[in-house]
Amino acid sequence: MTTVAEQKYAAPVGLEVRLRAIGPERYHHRHPFHQLMHEGRLTRAQLQAWALNRYYYQSIIPIKDAIILSRTDDAAFRRAWRKRIIDHDGDGTHPGGIEKWIALAEATGLKREQVTSLRGILPGVYYAVNGYLDLVSKRSFLEAVASSLTELFSRDLIALRIDRVREHYPWLSGGLAYFDARLTQAPEDAQFALNWVLEHARTEAEQELALKALRAKCDILWAQLDALYFAYVAPGWPPPGAFQPSVEAVPK
Amino acid sequence: MTTVAEQKYAAPVGLEVRLRAIGPERYHHRHPFHQLMHEGRLTRAQLQAWALNRYYYQSIIPIKDAIILSRTDDAAFRRAWRKRIIDHDGDGTHPGGIEKWIALAEATGLKREQVTSLRGILPGVYYAVNGYLDLVSKRSFLEAVASSLTELFSRDLIALRIDRVREHYPWLSGGLAYFDARLTQAPEDAQFALNWVLEHARTEAEQELALKALRAKCDILWAQLDALYFAYVAPGWPPPGAFQPSVEAVPK
Repeated sequence: MTTVAEQKYAAPVGLEVRLRAIGPERYHHRHPFHQLMHEGRLTRAQLQAWALNRYYYQSIIPIKDAIILSRTDDAAFRRAWRKRIIDHDGDGTHPGGIEKWIALAEATGLKREQVTSLRGILPGVYYAVNGYLDLVSKRSFLEAVASSLTELFSRDLIALRIDRVREHYPWLSGGLAYFDARLTQAPEDAQFALNWVLEHARTEAEQELALKALRAKCDILWAQLDALYFAYVAPGWPPPGAFQPSVEAVPK
Repeated sequence: MTTVAEQKYAAPVGLEVRLRAIGPERYHHRHPFHQLMHEGRLTRAQLQAWALNRYYYQSIIPIKDAIILSRTDDAAFRRAWRKRIIDHDGDGTHPGGIEKWIALAEATGLKREQVTSLRGILPGVYYAVNGYLDLVSKRSFLEAVASSLTELFSRDLIALRIDRVREHYPWLSGGLAYFDARLTQAPEDAQFALNWVLEHARTEAEQELALKALRAKCDILWAQLDALYFAYVAPGWPPPGAFQPSVEAVPK
């Protein structure tokens, strides 16, 4: 029988196992849109819609990280976390994550201006991404940090994606620099955030909050693909004002 | 006679002159506390109180800058502005502004832990500094950026201070690294912010907001010195819980 004291200060290893278990259960590598992508069954139009919509998510990442930075008086934390902003914004000469994502979108055949204007973003994507900003602004600092832990799961997805894009969409291979960089950046970032969460989520209630925040972030990623799937794959339709493909709708 | 159109889009040079005019009028180099400091008339206890209280202001600077970073979708702006966070937080090996300020406080004879604990900060300082966070969080982005322009005025004050501290408080000379760094950092930062404000404050109303934000920031700096002066210089008294000097109260 577990005593209250033992429950209250569960060993961090238990929390780590539970956090990691969220990946196989609800990370967006399981989403049908990604599965179609990795099976080579998406059209170029669908990949355009994905690159365009996901750009909105990419574009807010440094904003999200600056919000997190602004919420702590721990200078050592800020020094570690600011790396994310630099990785994503680049230095003006060497492209950061946002520029690399634009290059990916251009490789699908979209114009840069079309992407950066944010015109044609699906409402479902828009509100899910804004929900992420809301989470890191208004929930506890622990939840804000824990929500970043989807990066624990991203390496395998990215490695698979790089492989499958080269195989099925060779015309897109030149646009993969974003994913190449994330292969090393994401695990570094995730390890720091994981250690921090394990150290700071001490009570049962805090651990539940951390788990809930990571699930919420998985939902935020998942909901973006739901919106894409409904609008551009399943017998759905893009809402008024959303991106309308002008390229062929057969797999290429 | 000036037409409405001319008023509405006043030449930026007019705005720059008006922004710069705020310095001689209300920057805190004119505050009696600073004047006593530069005349060598502060005691070590008073310098301790200043270093301790001003630490709270220093400690929130990267938080303030991360809030500003989080408020813009302009990656080029973020790349320029993040330098401030790095300058202030350091890299963990080379000390940033906060560490250098702690070294200054230690040179006055305070213990590091006493400073970083924030115990004994005057309420007047606390609320003025929090007002700065409030300004950059809740007022327009233009006002948030314009509020940083006190750095236009800081170089002369810092140069004078370095000189006068070496003259009047030679025992404090070893703690001046913070000011040495700001001699070059502040003018760089101020020039970027000034150019941005001149470019973005186009209408008369926007220009008034920028001027008002810079005056508000001067007030925030001034109010901190008012609190110090009343508690530790003039026949005032530190409120309950505030720093109580334990060193001699005669000039040294």
